Amino acid sequence: MEELKQPRGCIGIVGLGLIGGSLGLELQSLGWEVHGLVHKSSTAERAKERKLAQSISTNPDLLTPCKIIILALPLSKLINPEAALVEALPPNAVVTDVGSVKEPVVEVWEKLHPRFIGSHPMAGTAEAGVESGQLGLFRNKAWVSTPTEKTDAQAIDAIHDLALMLGSKWITAQAKKHDEAVALISHLPVVVSAALLRTLGDERNPEVRNLAIALASSGFEDTTRVGGGNAELGTAMAQNNTSAILRALTSYRCSLEQLEGEIVGKNWSKLKTELESAHSLRSDIVPNKDEPQKRTKSSTVDYD
Amino acid sequence: MEELKQPRGCIGIVGLGLIGGSLGLELQSLGWEVHGLVHKSSTAERAKERKLAQSISTNPDLLTPCKIIILALPLSKLINPEAALVEALPPNAVVTDVGSVKEPVVEVWEKLHPRFIGSHPMAGTAEAGVESGQLGLFRNKAWVSTPTEKTDAQAIDAIHDLALMLGSKWITAQAKKHDEAVALISHLPVVVSAALLRTLGDERNPEVRNLAIALASSGFEDTTRVGGGNAELGTAMAQNNTSAILRALTSYRCSLEQLEGEIVGKNWSKLKTELESAHSLRSDIVPNKDEPQKRTKSSTVDYD
Repeated sequence: MEELKQPRGCIGIVGLGLIGGSLGLELQSLGWEVHGLVHKSSTAERAKERKLAQSISTNPDLLTPCKIIILALPLSKLINPEAALVEALPPNAVVTDVGSVKEPVVEVWEKLHPRFIGSHPMAGTAEAGVESGQLGLFRNKAWVSTPTEKTDAQAIDAIHDLALMLGSKWITAQAKKHDEAVALISHLPVVVSAALLRTLGDERNPEVRNLAIALASSGFEDTTRVGGGNAELGTAMAQNNTSAILRALTSYRCSLEQLEGEIVGKNWSKLKTELESAHSLRSDIVPNKDEPQKRTKSSTVDYD
Repeated sequence: MEELKQPRGCIGIVGLGLIGGSLGLELQSLGWEVHGLVHKSSTAERAKERKLAQSISTNPDLLTPCKIIILALPLSKLINPEAALVEALPPNAVVTDVGSVKEPVVEVWEKLHPRFIGSHPMAGTAEAGVESGQLGLFRNKAWVSTPTEKTDAQAIDAIHDLALMLGSKWITAQAKKHDEAVALISHLPVVVSAALLRTLGDERNPEVRNLAIALASSGFEDTTRVGGGNAELGTAMAQNNTSAILRALTSYRCSLEQLEGEIVGKNWSKLKTELESAHSLRSDIVPNKDEPQKRTKSSTVDYD
């Protein structure tokens, strides 16, 4: 952090929503000159008021002096990028994205830019849009990058440095493995949780339905939080990570049927053993998460 | 509350765990003389130190002077009560329980005591045992009672008054409807959520599994909280509310398969509509819960 006040150079951010806006605030505070490209002039105005970047425009030429460019766009725009954007990217710049699904993004972008590397900073909140950018969003969060054999070594180094500077935990993985992992812990929970809400919505007996709604408390709220979230985002996940989600769903249905089987068969000790192993698996996973101060900062983990 | 300092009479609590201990603290503060019956002398000692009741014993005779008796016991002990306990209950006392499943409890207890009424104060936390009782546990929480045609009117009035005194929201329902409703919002989520943990545990590719564990964050944590909870409690729910849980699971599987069908068929606009309706159902349910101060206190709702 000794370099805080020295100018680090110019970094471009395409899109100033939750991730892009947060990156803009954070990178400025770390001494970067941030150029923000947005789609609408009304967004540009608001982003200027919020000081999300030093220079903000709807004109892609603003990216010309940037040595790193972060595409903080929704998945649909990453997979079908505008030609004007692609043309405006300087060939020597390192380009990365922040999409939550990696295989289709990497497939498209490796062909479009010689120094592209896929990224997924895992720092979502329920917020979105130009009002949502905030400082500290990336601290102690995973920053997954998905380099391939073709990825430029300097591009890996540049984004690695960037992630560590933001306080993130650097993880590298194959794009396909990343997509299967997030299907298990992020996309499958959306479907499982939405189906739970749907079951309540489908209850035909109005007395039972209304009583259930009146009695729903923290357990139901927790379990349905992600299923009752942003429908557009949930659909985009399913659309862009279809095969991994279907693979996870097949395994999930099998798990569910096994538990149901224990209940049908009144195998209570077997059910209890299953619930105990669920309990101990969750205890293994969650302590690391509930106490972020105990996690190694800036550590590097490889899953290749 | 003008009666706060006048002695209200003697109330018995059988079991001084989370619910029983909290009732003991609260009822003493409201001017009741509380007699607490526990099973083990070590529990009695600790309960005395914590002042969970004025009089605490392992001898059921301590219940003799009580005009209301609350059975704050686990479901298994409610359904198979000890003969010594049943014999010690004064016939004129009003008797209620706090079990989270009502039909089997009401079935047993209506035969055992002439002034029994089923109750389910919905005030659980992750805590249990003699250390867990706390003040304020019942405030703004639902207190479901499940009277039948046979229930003594004075018993209903007595427990109604008690629930309102504790700041709870009084709800009456048929035991069977209660059990179906809690299956939907409390027991089904446990199975659904445990199956999600199991899916992660079953992942055969160690790279994907380890990466998923490393990346699991708040969404996964929320969705798996109840499935990774107390295995004994989860098993007791399934064991005592089997038919309602199986009914809920059948409907859930159907919901899940429908969502999976939209993904397989790449019906993205249909999937989005489904996720939007899940979102709006959750928004209908949760505002009431997230802002308890806006709920009507001491209101009465009937679902019979």
